[in-house]
Amino acid sequence: MRIGVARETAPGEQRVALIPQEVDGLRKAGHEVVVESGAGAAAGFADTAYADRGAVVGSTADVLGADVTLFVRAPGSDPAATDELIGRLRPGQVTVGLADPLGAPSAATALAKAGVTSFALELLPRITRAQAMDVLSSQATLAGYKAALIAAGRLNKILPMMTTAAGTLPPARALVIGAGVAGLQAIATCKRIGAVVSAYDVRAAAAEQAESVGATFVDLGLETEGAETAGGYASARDEDFYRRQREALGKVVAAQDIVITTAQVQGMRAPVLVTAEMVRAMAPGSVIVDIAAAQGGNCELSIADEEVDIGGVTVIAPTNLPATVPAHASRLYAKNLTNFLKLLIVDGEVRLDLSDPIIADTLVTHGGEVMAPRVRDLLGLA
Amino acid sequence: MRIGVARETAPGEQRVALIPQEVDGLRKAGHEVVVESGAGAAAGFADTAYADRGAVVGSTADVLGADVTLFVRAPGSDPAATDELIGRLRPGQVTVGLADPLGAPSAATALAKAGVTSFALELLPRITRAQAMDVLSSQATLAGYKAALIAAGRLNKILPMMTTAAGTLPPARALVIGAGVAGLQAIATCKRIGAVVSAYDVRAAAAEQAESVGATFVDLGLETEGAETAGGYASARDEDFYRRQREALGKVVAAQDIVITTAQVQGMRAPVLVTAEMVRAMAPGSVIVDIAAAQGGNCELSIADEEVDIGGVTVIAPTNLPATVPAHASRLYAKNLTNFLKLLIVDGEVRLDLSDPIIADTLVTHGGEVMAPRVRDLLGLA
Repeated sequence: MRIGVARETAPGEQRVALIPQEVDGLRKAGHEVVVESGAGAAAGFADTAYADRGAVVGSTADVLGADVTLFVRAPGSDPAATDELIGRLRPGQVTVGLADPLGAPSAATALAKAGVTSFALELLPRITRAQAMDVLSSQATLAGYKAALIAAGRLNKILPMMTTAAGTLPPARALVIGAGVAGLQAIATCKRIGAVVSAYDVRAAAAEQAESVGATFVDLGLETEGAETAGGYASARDEDFYRRQREALGKVVAAQDIVITTAQVQGMRAPVLVTAEMVRAMAPGSVIVDIAAAQGGNCELSIADEEVDIGGVTVIAPTNLPATVPAHASRLYAKNLTNFLKLLIVDGEVRLDLSDPIIADTLVTHGGEVMAPRVRDLLGLA
Repeated sequence: MRIGVARETAPGEQRVALIPQEVDGLRKAGHEVVVESGAGAAAGFADTAYADRGAVVGSTADVLGADVTLFVRAPGSDPAATDELIGRLRPGQVTVGLADPLGAPSAATALAKAGVTSFALELLPRITRAQAMDVLSSQATLAGYKAALIAAGRLNKILPMMTTAAGTLPPARALVIGAGVAGLQAIATCKRIGAVVSAYDVRAAAAEQAESVGATFVDLGLETEGAETAGGYASARDEDFYRRQREALGKVVAAQDIVITTAQVQGMRAPVLVTAEMVRAMAPGSVIVDIAAAQGGNCELSIADEEVDIGGVTVIAPTNLPATVPAHASRLYAKNLTNFLKLLIVDGEVRLDLSDPIIADTLVTHGGEVMAPRVRDLLGLA
């Protein structure tokens, strides 16, 4: 098959869906690879690097005209570009990438209408067999790492304890809220740099994991039953729960130099956990990094992709941290994607085996229909 | 005595010469402390915090009219403000701070003419008794830490090796050039975050120190005799030495993701160690942080306080990294300074004991004369 690799167009997106090293495997499997000119430039991969591996470097039209087109940000993921992009796809074409199907389900309607067979990797089931394709995890790991670095880079102190001839500097204190994949990496990175780290998560099961990477787990004394979905993600709670959570968290937050928030609930607005009042109770010079910003943010004062100063407290709300380490983010993403393609393309043909939950869960549109049950629900389709 | 604490005026300077915790000791020693309103704000110390410790919060005139006025950047250190500042000082007044006496010796002429007794902490002798006052070391430690964080934050990769379901990311490679106080801390911090670190210094004695904090020492096969002054600083070398050094270094540099340069020679332009050619041989996405920028830089392409892109390689040349961690930088600086004052002020009087090398070496001007021999040399005074 002819597999296209699109140049990303979303603002600030520096990743690429396929890196040169992954061209080999696809060609060995009998595929032709067409890479849009400049697709890998921002991630450090030149056109020549793809060509050296036997890929064809082509135009946007060449890539969008392939049998299967690979994206980091597939139609839906960047709302501003979605309509135009879908207009350039043809019936029967297959697209694979992050498509934000739960955040922007209307793109699915347009994709179905265009007759496109689209896959959204956010919908991968959390089963062992899908781990090697799990782009949410691979990208979240990098986001957590980078959140810690940004916080450390912005703080008015250093993180490690340091003993000098002029006395001893105590270590900085960091709190990570949400101990999922991103949170655990944020904990590990803050710890590595030298901070004293604590962590909080509504899922009691997260305590052991957070402790294993160096954090003290904060017990707010709240009941945590039902905090986790069967899939291992945090589930949504009622407003009363969040209010009590905020009251208890406030005292912990006030004592921190750094707060990193990572609490997301798939397909919903992120819960507000750090209120304006809590921010104002922090010491001047302290830093909040809110990586749930793309989902509305865990901090009430977050402004997506901006850095705001609240009485000396810096609130940073990056929406796309993986794109700031594009070489490694693309490398993991490309590996995830090629693992997915191995399952999807059998004997040179796209095989829609809907008895396989990996295919069934990620297939958003096909044959003119919106297929994914969760997206159909959001669109009010029976 | 009446001790004044100036509000810093140099662009980007966020430190303050005295923090509230150090007011206690000065008051116990019988001194009155006058802090210029807003002096500690950028470092996270409010006027009220000083007042709570018994300091008087006053105007610029109050502070400049004190018996001894404390600065981070004393007259000379910020050329643009030096003349105006000296114009506001009175004969017999004592100033203490960083004054860049070897970089900007002309300020000494003006200070002498104004009858000011000025001390430059850069000139502290490297003796055991002076370690607790050594502002160059305390600030360089922070600069080295921050250089590593900036490099890690800008690189298109993560530093640590990471094993994920989508494969293993190899660790990033960092080279630190100049293994003095700043360099050693840059090594330690890169290592902590997870890089594979190597180090280079002209002083063979630096190898063991660099290795003790986790670096592999790079041997360029150059003769290193005479590379170190009696005071333990790197000494200047001839151009032929630097040329051979550059040739050998080029190969090492090309293999790095991160290069941090810290090579400075007191009172001279920093040697150019990383040439334009070397930068162009690095992979796109890699990063150079040149913290010798205030002395002209170790990288040929450095532009002070700017970030330049050379074919995908980012060259960052910050001139005042300690000011970016102002809370801790001020804390160490203030402790250094109060240790110096304990020696300088005895029984409520400034005692110019020129038999003490700490006093003799740091005294730049007194009684209308330029005193410091090295500054006199630079000014062509007999």
